[in-house]
Amino acid sequence: MTENKNWEVISTSLEPSQLIVDETLFHVANGYIGVRGNFEEEYPNGYDTIRGTYINGLYDISEVKHGEKLQGFIDSKQKIINITDVQGIQLFIEGDKFSLFEGEILEYTRILDMKAGVARRHVVWKSPKGHILQIDIKRMASFVKPELFVIEYAVKSVNYEGEIILVSTQKGEVSNYFNPNDPRVAGEYEKHLTVKEITREEHIDLIHSETNTSKLKVVSAVKHIVSAPCQIESTSDRLSLTSKIKFNIELGKTEKLVKYCVFTDSIRCADPSISAICIMQEAAQMPLIKLYKLQQGYLDEFWNRSDVVVEGDSNLQQGIRFSLFELLQSVGKDKYSNIAAKGLSGEGYEGHYFWDTEIYMLPFFLLTNQKLAENLLSYRYEKLDDARNNARLMGHKKGALYPWRTISGSECSAYFPSGPAQYHIDADIAYMFVQHYLVTNDLDFVVHKGAEVLFETARLWMDAGHYAEDRFVIDAITGPDEYTCIVNNNYYTNSMAKYNLKWAAKFFYLLKGTNQLDDLIKKIQITEEEAEKWDEAYQKMYLPYDKELDINPQDDTFLSKAVWDFENTPKDKYPLLLHYHPLYIYRHQVCKQADTVLAHFLLEDEEKLSTIQNSFDYYEKITTHDSSLSTCIFSIVASKLGNIRKAYDYFMQTTRLDLDNTHHNTKDGIHTANMGGTYMGMVYGFAGLRIKETGIYFNPILPDEWEGYAFKICYQNRVIEVRVNKRESSFKLLEGEKVTIHIKDIKYELCGELVIEI
Amino acid sequence: MTENKNWEVISTSLEPSQLIVDETLFHVANGYIGVRGNFEEEYPNGYDTIRGTYINGLYDISEVKHGEKLQGFIDSKQKIINITDVQGIQLFIEGDKFSLFEGEILEYTRILDMKAGVARRHVVWKSPKGHILQIDIKRMASFVKPELFVIEYAVKSVNYEGEIILVSTQKGEVSNYFNPNDPRVAGEYEKHLTVKEITREEHIDLIHSETNTSKLKVVSAVKHIVSAPCQIESTSDRLSLTSKIKFNIELGKTEKLVKYCVFTDSIRCADPSISAICIMQEAAQMPLIKLYKLQQGYLDEFWNRSDVVVEGDSNLQQGIRFSLFELLQSVGKDKYSNIAAKGLSGEGYEGHYFWDTEIYMLPFFLLTNQKLAENLLSYRYEKLDDARNNARLMGHKKGALYPWRTISGSECSAYFPSGPAQYHIDADIAYMFVQHYLVTNDLDFVVHKGAEVLFETARLWMDAGHYAEDRFVIDAITGPDEYTCIVNNNYYTNSMAKYNLKWAAKFFYLLKGTNQLDDLIKKIQITEEEAEKWDEAYQKMYLPYDKELDINPQDDTFLSKAVWDFENTPKDKYPLLLHYHPLYIYRHQVCKQADTVLAHFLLEDEEKLSTIQNSFDYYEKITTHDSSLSTCIFSIVASKLGNIRKAYDYFMQTTRLDLDNTHHNTKDGIHTANMGGTYMGMVYGFAGLRIKETGIYFNPILPDEWEGYAFKICYQNRVIEVRVNKRESSFKLLEGEKVTIHIKDIKYELCGELVIEI
Repeated sequence: MTENKNWEVISTSLEPSQLIVDETLFHVANGYIGVRGNFEEEYPNGYDTIRGTYINGLYDISEVKHGEKLQGFIDSKQKIINITDVQGIQLFIEGDKFSLFEGEILEYTRILDMKAGVARRHVVWKSPKGHILQIDIKRMASFVKPELFVIEYAVKSVNYEGEIILVSTQKGEVSNYFNPNDPRVAGEYEKHLTVKEITREEHIDLIHSETNTSKLKVVSAVKHIVSAPCQIESTSDRLSLTSKIKFNIELGKTEKLVKYCVFTDSIRCADPSISAICIMQEAAQMPLIKLYKLQQGYLDEFWNRSDVVVEGDSNLQQGIRFSLFELLQSVGKDKYSNIAAKGLSGEGYEGHYFWDTEIYMLPFFLLTNQKLAENLLSYRYEKLDDARNNARLMGHKKGALYPWRTISGSECSAYFPSGPAQYHIDADIAYMFVQHYLVTNDLDFVVHKGAEVLFETARLWMDAGHYAEDRFVIDAITGPDEYTCIVNNNYYTNSMAKYNLKWAAKFFYLLKGTNQLDDLIKKIQITEEEAEKWDEAYQKMYLPYDKELDINPQDDTFLSKAVWDFENTPKDKYPLLLHYHPLYIYRHQVCKQADTVLAHFLLEDEEKLSTIQNSFDYYEKITTHDSSLSTCIFSIVASKLGNIRKAYDYFMQTTRLDLDNTHHNTKDGIHTANMGGTYMGMVYGFAGLRIKETGIYFNPILPDEWEGYAFKICYQNRVIEVRVNKRESSFKLLEGEKVTIHIKDIKYELCGELVIEI
Repeated sequence: MTENKNWEVISTSLEPSQLIVDETLFHVANGYIGVRGNFEEEYPNGYDTIRGTYINGLYDISEVKHGEKLQGFIDSKQKIINITDVQGIQLFIEGDKFSLFEGEILEYTRILDMKAGVARRHVVWKSPKGHILQIDIKRMASFVKPELFVIEYAVKSVNYEGEIILVSTQKGEVSNYFNPNDPRVAGEYEKHLTVKEITREEHIDLIHSETNTSKLKVVSAVKHIVSAPCQIESTSDRLSLTSKIKFNIELGKTEKLVKYCVFTDSIRCADPSISAICIMQEAAQMPLIKLYKLQQGYLDEFWNRSDVVVEGDSNLQQGIRFSLFELLQSVGKDKYSNIAAKGLSGEGYEGHYFWDTEIYMLPFFLLTNQKLAENLLSYRYEKLDDARNNARLMGHKKGALYPWRTISGSECSAYFPSGPAQYHIDADIAYMFVQHYLVTNDLDFVVHKGAEVLFETARLWMDAGHYAEDRFVIDAITGPDEYTCIVNNNYYTNSMAKYNLKWAAKFFYLLKGTNQLDDLIKKIQITEEEAEKWDEAYQKMYLPYDKELDINPQDDTFLSKAVWDFENTPKDKYPLLLHYHPLYIYRHQVCKQADTVLAHFLLEDEEKLSTIQNSFDYYEKITTHDSSLSTCIFSIVASKLGNIRKAYDYFMQTTRLDLDNTHHNTKDGIHTANMGGTYMGMVYGFAGLRIKETGIYFNPILPDEWEGYAFKICYQNRVIEVRVNKRESSFKLLEGEKVTIHIKDIKYELCGELVIEI
């Protein structure tokens, strides 16, 4: 382990099963484009690979078939697509083609450098003919120029003098990954992108493509810059462009090919072809070193704001940094995109956006980079009309219901019991608009975006629920736990809907009398009477409670079901969803993930501590954590309950999920929500952060295994640094005016630094 | 209306929308083959038609796609297929081709003669050239020779002398009906049958085909017999056979072509080609008149046993007779087949068998033709291994779970919430095995078939349910009402499962000590301890009851849901399932069909009369009867409750559903369950028949609109004739020894005739 390891992910494996995982781990992305860590020269035949490049928010439409199609079932869905492959570079030396599986490998390492924002591959290779070359390949998806992906391909001769040929390709014939033997990914070849034209202008090679059904344009542009005098022979066919670059290399010398690649699309540009050329011209003008510097600058700032330092566990530190870095790589930075469940690292979950964004990932951005958080919330605001349409599709006459999974705004889930039935997504989104308001105090954002979202989601709850004897109840929905579907009064959903209704009414009264509210009243016909009804439903909302057990039952009938027979379920039957019919699972008390326990984190003041403790104990026994969204929440609530041992254990199951491929599917992409959960486990879990209407709260604890930890957060125009070690916790106001904070429920005025014994 | 109308269905319409309905109404079938009432000469281009011939139990396999495929979801299903088209006969006269849409129609009628068991078409046609012909076509699917379908094509010349050409075809290139504009039927062309060989042996034309995926062989054979001296020119191509028959006709004379068609398949015959030839040779030897006589004889016997006479409403009488006739046409008469939801009249529901057989149709056969009833029960016994496999698929370690819809025995439903989740089918089948025992006293049938079915279904209930505080409960299943899915303790299911468990234990003790039980114990490892557990679960079975309303709630949470907003639901939004997302429907108190009310019919002693009355009133308000299985049950229970007005109204909505096409989908086939319901409405409804462990019960009532009604039933080796008129009801023992019967709960000894004032 090098000293630098905390900032790097390193692999030296050439095992086929690890190579495909490394494609995910070493992908580079910037929130707009993502390029998997494929080898430029490709693998030998027979190696499984997911060779892919993706644009966030760019999708094609795929037909959805149902064995039995009922009213409101979707006919089609959006799907992220694999776009033009610009990764190809083949190296030839005296007739031998460079491959890590031929000749002799003298050195091999690949490194994801999270400080510099680049992925590197270092190889010393002896060709079959005995020529030794050192090859260093560096890849970057630029955060500063999001359309730009660069490959720097450096070749150093160790014992050879003579001609080197590099064949650089740009291939327009691409398809999404499919594997007929794996039921979890697409089983059939589907073509989504068609090359429309291939052009070459001012030494820029362009492929102009179009998605087959959504008719979106994608343009890729490539420009080569070679350090040595060289001869370039360019050819093209109907589907691809090839540049054969010949140069001579001297002993001990290094020559470089820089392959600038630019991607544009018709969602963002009126004419993506023109845009691609302009962006390329600007980018290629810049020396590479300058681009690296800009990248470094961007990341320095990011890490300065966002880093979470843990002392005493280097592996863990690496896992945390990897999580934060991947969140940055994945997050969409314009209003057309959000964060896909797998970021831009693979095709799992088809590039869809889920509630994961709000409940698992937005907190990180909200506390460290409010612009990005606002962008994510704005995305939801932009999709409000789609959510209104979706509500109609689901039978509701009023309100907006956000789709369970989507790219462009309409529902993409084909299985409603654990998809569109998860109405809680509405309250999740509303919750984060409220959190944003509490963290930023930004009433303007409420006025222009949040209020309308909260009003329309509140309307949905009024239409989805009803009064039963003076209690407001919500029937036939599904909570977060996908092992229990279509139930009445899911505690999580009802408590979150309650919060949604409360704040919708609050926003109404907060804005009452303003011009902006008047505009909104005109736009969506809100009345004070409606706001009163929201307030009433909030007050009358029914939350299931079992007196005898002093817990919140997950729903009205959860506790009367048979407990899953865990004792007689062998390990290889997990995750249960891959081995049991859903109906059999639904029949039992068994949870895929945190559900009531998640509500106890998000709305901890709703219940007394004994109830939260009892609920935690109860659900812990029956939760399989088959979802990657679960252990982080159990860790946070264990922290709250002061059970440091459990908090630590659950946290450690969370932090390196992808690095250690513990869910065995990292090849399909990273688990972004789990990464957000890693952040939350530290900040909301161990440090006990909560941001409420009544202010900001900390309740730091420290596992024995660590020396300490530290992070910064932004709160109402302040930056607060938190440091916890074995003796004390310190709170330092780095920016902004003094502020009241609560530490272990004692109120303090924070101006300089505040040190409290732990 | 002719005097004969009660025995006939008549149509004179040439409206395209009615023609396709008439194809269903005038189909001929015998339980083995069914031929839709298509025109031999076909319609003009652009007329919608479902041209079809079907074999009961013959299927191909069709792939099932799921938008999201979860564990246990089916990959493929069986599907009834349209087989070789032998219907084609074209008539040419002096170059004009006979068509009902060219020339001039002087007379046109088609008649389904339910007494003779034939369908006739009578046309007097003036050709464009002015030649007048009388054409009489008679079709029969023989009940005596089930492989045989005959077309008698008679041409009488009114004003012509000269040559007539008949072109008779047999087409092997067929496909199932599809209509891309109707979401309720197949939307894509799927080919299921491939012609393997075409042969001609001893004047028999044969097409040997095979189903594409299930690899079943089907052979069709055609032989022509012409009354006049004629010249036959036979040709064939790869897919079809054509016989061009030329003869001269004299003025006023009638000449006939008899087209014998035989179908065989490899499910029933080792070599269907040889069988087809043998059967054809035997059949074609027989004069047609003999075949008609055999048909008539078969039907005389059927009607003698089975007819239900109603005096005072000729339309109704026609509806009842049509129902009984169609049940006979539809019912499978060998162990390979059952009764499809649409009989053999169309492709709706893909030829699948449902619980409809047991709960709606078996009673008719059990009371009038026990052999056929036993055949239907034997089919279930034969499929017990499939039901065991299905139980495993659904997660159960023990027992058998019958599939919701099937042909060959495995599950064919692609939507589990209102399909495979309807576990009650197990109890429905068990119930009818018990009914069979009560009606026949046949312990032998119990020993050889019923006991094993009841034991395995009882085991299923033990595995699906569990004890919750001393009550046996059943979670996460769906009852008959498909507008409320995946619930706990559906009253219907629990009460039927209770009956199933009770009788499984009863059968065990009844057979205890016999060799046959010992064999069964060896075969399926039943123990007395297990039987005791069934008995205990029966005793502890939880049946939801609401004290305040004195009703049985449909399930644990049904009553707390919002009542559907019927007032604001326009008529064109029914059936709801075509207009609302299922989840929206599930969220409300609204029933597609009788559910608790059905339990009140089948298990009337389970609840006190006030509860049944209150339940009836409660569910009546919220039931849409969007299913054709509903009104008949409401009629029966209204009869029981003495509400003759309602009984009559519901009954009248039931009896002519297909004749009047009230559900607007008769083109896809008849509604066989509704036809069984028509029978039950009379016999169990107005006559109040019940057969219980304690004996046989009648409770006759008579609607004011009628003069009287009469029918016969078989009961424990007796035949009892029931006649009810405005003054009295009479019970006459036609066959068998004296027997105790209960009339209006008074016990009588029936030996001769018993007349009771009504």
